[in-house]
Amino acid sequence: MKTLKLLNYAADQWVAGDGGLAEVHSAVTGEVIAETGSSGLDFKAMLDHARNVGGPALRAMTFHDRAWMLKALAQAVMARKEELYELSYNSGATRTDGWIDIEGGAGTLFSFSSKGRRELPNGRILVDGAMEPLSKGGSFVGQHVFTPLQGVAVHINAFNFPVWGMLEKLGPTLLAGVPAIVKPASATGYLAEACVRIMIEADVLPKGALQLIMGGVGDLMDHLTLQDVVSFTGSAQTAMKLQSHPVIARESVRFIAERDSLNASILGPDAAPGTPEFDLFIKEVAREMTVKAGQKCTAIRRAMAPAEHLDAVQDALSARLAKVKIGDPREEGVTMGALASARQLRDVREQIGKLHKQARIVSGNPDHVFPGHEKGAFIEPVLLRTDTPWTADAVHDIEAFGPVSTIMPYKDMEDAIALANRGMGSLALSLFTFDARVAEEFVLGSGAYHGRMMILDRTSAKESTGHGSPLPVLVHGGPGRAGGGEEMGGIRGVTHYMQRTALQGSPEVLSKVAHQWLPGADKPTGDVHPFRKRISELEVGYTLKTHSRTVTLEDVEHFAHFTGDTFYAHMDEEAAKANPIFDGRVAHGYLILSFAAGLFVEPAPGPVLANTGLDNLRFVTPLYPGDSMRVELTVKSTKLRNEEMGEVRWAVYVFNQKDEVVATYDLLTMNAP
Amino acid sequence: MKTLKLLNYAADQWVAGDGGLAEVHSAVTGEVIAETGSSGLDFKAMLDHARNVGGPALRAMTFHDRAWMLKALAQAVMARKEELYELSYNSGATRTDGWIDIEGGAGTLFSFSSKGRRELPNGRILVDGAMEPLSKGGSFVGQHVFTPLQGVAVHINAFNFPVWGMLEKLGPTLLAGVPAIVKPASATGYLAEACVRIMIEADVLPKGALQLIMGGVGDLMDHLTLQDVVSFTGSAQTAMKLQSHPVIARESVRFIAERDSLNASILGPDAAPGTPEFDLFIKEVAREMTVKAGQKCTAIRRAMAPAEHLDAVQDALSARLAKVKIGDPREEGVTMGALASARQLRDVREQIGKLHKQARIVSGNPDHVFPGHEKGAFIEPVLLRTDTPWTADAVHDIEAFGPVSTIMPYKDMEDAIALANRGMGSLALSLFTFDARVAEEFVLGSGAYHGRMMILDRTSAKESTGHGSPLPVLVHGGPGRAGGGEEMGGIRGVTHYMQRTALQGSPEVLSKVAHQWLPGADKPTGDVHPFRKRISELEVGYTLKTHSRTVTLEDVEHFAHFTGDTFYAHMDEEAAKANPIFDGRVAHGYLILSFAAGLFVEPAPGPVLANTGLDNLRFVTPLYPGDSMRVELTVKSTKLRNEEMGEVRWAVYVFNQKDEVVATYDLLTMNAP
Repeated sequence: MKTLKLLNYAADQWVAGDGGLAEVHSAVTGEVIAETGSSGLDFKAMLDHARNVGGPALRAMTFHDRAWMLKALAQAVMARKEELYELSYNSGATRTDGWIDIEGGAGTLFSFSSKGRRELPNGRILVDGAMEPLSKGGSFVGQHVFTPLQGVAVHINAFNFPVWGMLEKLGPTLLAGVPAIVKPASATGYLAEACVRIMIEADVLPKGALQLIMGGVGDLMDHLTLQDVVSFTGSAQTAMKLQSHPVIARESVRFIAERDSLNASILGPDAAPGTPEFDLFIKEVAREMTVKAGQKCTAIRRAMAPAEHLDAVQDALSARLAKVKIGDPREEGVTMGALASARQLRDVREQIGKLHKQARIVSGNPDHVFPGHEKGAFIEPVLLRTDTPWTADAVHDIEAFGPVSTIMPYKDMEDAIALANRGMGSLALSLFTFDARVAEEFVLGSGAYHGRMMILDRTSAKESTGHGSPLPVLVHGGPGRAGGGEEMGGIRGVTHYMQRTALQGSPEVLSKVAHQWLPGADKPTGDVHPFRKRISELEVGYTLKTHSRTVTLEDVEHFAHFTGDTFYAHMDEEAAKANPIFDGRVAHGYLILSFAAGLFVEPAPGPVLANTGLDNLRFVTPLYPGDSMRVELTVKSTKLRNEEMGEVRWAVYVFNQKDEVVATYDLLTMNAP
Repeated sequence: MKTLKLLNYAADQWVAGDGGLAEVHSAVTGEVIAETGSSGLDFKAMLDHARNVGGPALRAMTFHDRAWMLKALAQAVMARKEELYELSYNSGATRTDGWIDIEGGAGTLFSFSSKGRRELPNGRILVDGAMEPLSKGGSFVGQHVFTPLQGVAVHINAFNFPVWGMLEKLGPTLLAGVPAIVKPASATGYLAEACVRIMIEADVLPKGALQLIMGGVGDLMDHLTLQDVVSFTGSAQTAMKLQSHPVIARESVRFIAERDSLNASILGPDAAPGTPEFDLFIKEVAREMTVKAGQKCTAIRRAMAPAEHLDAVQDALSARLAKVKIGDPREEGVTMGALASARQLRDVREQIGKLHKQARIVSGNPDHVFPGHEKGAFIEPVLLRTDTPWTADAVHDIEAFGPVSTIMPYKDMEDAIALANRGMGSLALSLFTFDARVAEEFVLGSGAYHGRMMILDRTSAKESTGHGSPLPVLVHGGPGRAGGGEEMGGIRGVTHYMQRTALQGSPEVLSKVAHQWLPGADKPTGDVHPFRKRISELEVGYTLKTHSRTVTLEDVEHFAHFTGDTFYAHMDEEAAKANPIFDGRVAHGYLILSFAAGLFVEPAPGPVLANTGLDNLRFVTPLYPGDSMRVELTVKSTKLRNEEMGEVRWAVYVFNQKDEVVATYDLLTMNAP
């Protein structure tokens, strides 16, 4: 294989480092496969390019534009995935490991694309939460909104998942409307470089939206401002060094860290040998040790079991680990490849040495040399055991970032929770129990220490995505040692790259800014029934005011017998009066809804195809027989999907003859052009 | 007045500092009014007391328990507010200034109490967002939850609002279930000490929930862990020093900072002299300069106007400022008191000196000596002006924390936005315009730089709470120079003291943990109709499965003519078929809802008093004439308010004869014992 010359992508140009290139070696054969370096780059100019070119272009797009762009990027990666798999083998990854990285990465972009179109408006501003009334008369109100940061997201990524680790950050960043500068880890940067190349060649990103640094970041940190975000994945040591850069505190630069994590897996007190949960636990611990040769920040490092079952756990795990076939990941039948580099191999052995001082090795030989693979970064899975976890600090503090785990006993639930929390903050914990009370006790006792907790049993295991898999719709990150950061989590992850601002003003002006009608804002009317207008013609606030209709006792009686809803408050004057809410028989809520529709519906075919739903219905004032009702139907927001197909959200107010609000709700319709 | 001996409150004991006490002076007379100090305290023991005693006690309470506790604290403060007003005069505060601090502080507790009962469950775990499906079969799902941090909130507060500044942090902290250690600023700590005394004497706080440090924090920072939060308000310099303490990065201690802020107020391009917005702008800038003698982190420091109106602004502002009556805040007619201390006076004069190098003073004399008040910290309001704001860096970077503002011109909207953002991040911005397009352009261009933006015009001014007022329901905090922190914002502020955890597992186990029925969880049935059960007897998941009912074409016709809803999709077979969603005439959504109620309602009087609302209704599968429908009504969650009065949220599923879901929604009822 010829040596790859890895290039940086700066200001929309592929450029080589101008000297001092570092060699990158195959994890499998040890041979040099690439040269990489970033010296000579003008980092300040890269930041400026992102700020002045990429940011404005992304911000000019709507959330939906950006979501479609993510989909196109994901499709481009999938279309050329085999190129990436081919490179991936060099990192010691099996096809399965590569799948997690490559297709898992593309899947994350697909997920953000889909969430973005489903949950975000087709606009440029994101409304956060409900309008807050701030005054009695309603002329002064509050509304939180998110707008994109106007700086750059600097993504400093880890070596273990060069594709996924990049795309899981790029998805929310680009969806937010923020340009990124990516700095992959050097050991596997060739995969990130190839993936960036694929994305650039897909030609869907605006200029300046994505740049790549294939080496050190030079003086980049010095030039960060309040509008930038640093999202770091890697060692606690590097994280702390970056976080203590004076610019971070001085400019309040957002710093998201995902660092070390001594993730725990707990065999529940009910999950004795012979139970399905015991078998699931063994399978999961073994799997987490060997997938990606244990180089996952979420891998299980500490496996805890009731003291009486620890021997059984050791036996079952050892038996399972003995079946692992280690070797060249291209070879048929190989289930575990190599560590990512010779340096990783050295590090892992060194950390095992530290663990070994306080725990004994019960399976695997860390120094085993694989014949014919002497230059590859291969290692056997190593299982350690301590029977005194409260005096073996190393097992809670030292992470060997490879196929290495320690088993340990716990006495009771309190002890198990304390041991889990002794990791001082983790990304992921798993608990194997079929007892919901155990689960609840664990979450209350341990939730504050873990970013994700998987509770597995016989009913959920088959469909489980596993202890070690961060998912785009769930938050990834954990407190304390894990860095305190949060990534992904659906739209939550998008807001990491946006600024929340509390807007205050009149409902009318805030409606105009938020592109959403707010209670109290103007309700202009017109000659055309809103059901006859195309989405593009429906202005936020446009209102239909209906005539009024009297609701008679006969209507209530009739409705009751027709629907079968003969609840006493509608039928029995005396009983209704005894009810603390009503003064006598009242109209059914559903009668009010139905009559309201009768008042506002325009019957002939038109742009409105169907009533698809209803939100936030509240019955405010009872409607009594003899009262009349009228409706105001207001365009609250519209969401054009494509060629004018889309949804309309209507604010509906039902009033009685005294102009008191009887009911309010949001009505949803699907509209065609 | 005799000198107060201020005490610390450590481990539920009032204790004096054991030496090295500092003297505190009256801002008005300069005389010594108090002695304060914290030497001799065992800070590690205080942290441990909070963690081991206060935290567990608070976490054993429900959100509603804690919300009622906040109400009792607020009532205690209000009952003894005159004691606080009396002390407040010593800080130079007028009665109006004291009102903001004292009654504003109590009001913030009331607000959190009310929000807590309205928006939080009466339980110990907070569900965050919707359930996330993670598998095709639905047996493995995700649900984010919040649980309280298990550490301590360390509140380091500023001198300007010793009561409000403490209570606005204590509200969300205690509501979250986290104990606090408060360290007030020394200049006005006597007010915080008195307020803590009132709250402790109210005897509603559990032991260990609240402690007070009346001096330096010694080695406290060294002992922080991942479960603790530092919430700091004060200078950027001190914030940076605290934030760079190695424990912060090492343990990922949450650090919330609210620092400096060169808040801007902008006169819109439309708001020429003579418009109501011009007058409102003048009034607001003058008010912000003089309330609390300008010692507000949200005060307007930079007032910007179209170049052609700057002279008019200067004239109008100067005239208004000339009417300010400065003096002893106890005196009748005084509209502006003193700065909080002689040190503040020195600082403000020094900063004015720096500003004066790049801007000229157009109103006020910073060195004016007030006869008879030579020892008080009095100063005139000082208005500066620069006509070249892009070369006068000082006006954007130097904060004189007193009655000091600079006026400056802008050329056009782009220039105004850039000048506003030149503050490098602020807490609050105000914009005076009657043009919604100006407002939108400003929010899009400037939102990312400001934590709060008030847009004021003739319609909202009367009810406005003003540029400088942080409100409990809105986020307080800003990016960059302002510290990047967020406080309050309703329930958002409560989550600052909780950990978000992504739970994964079967819907059944997650339902049990979250105390909320999730789709896919078990639906146990029983002999008793759920409408006949008291709230305390209603178990989450308990389900009524109704018999089924056929919906006929006659039903649809009848319903259409009865309600008036003759939408073509219900009435016209051919037109309905042409609709892309339907295969022919369909039943009305409201007919389905009404018949569903007819199927599940238990008519006789019982615990259910009324249907109060409905959420998240989605029509999933059309129901055609001849189809039948049945309902499953499941207890989703219950919220006991008091003596068994409360709300029940029901998950309703309507199925057709093929067991396809026709509609799903949440039904809300109000229930009595």
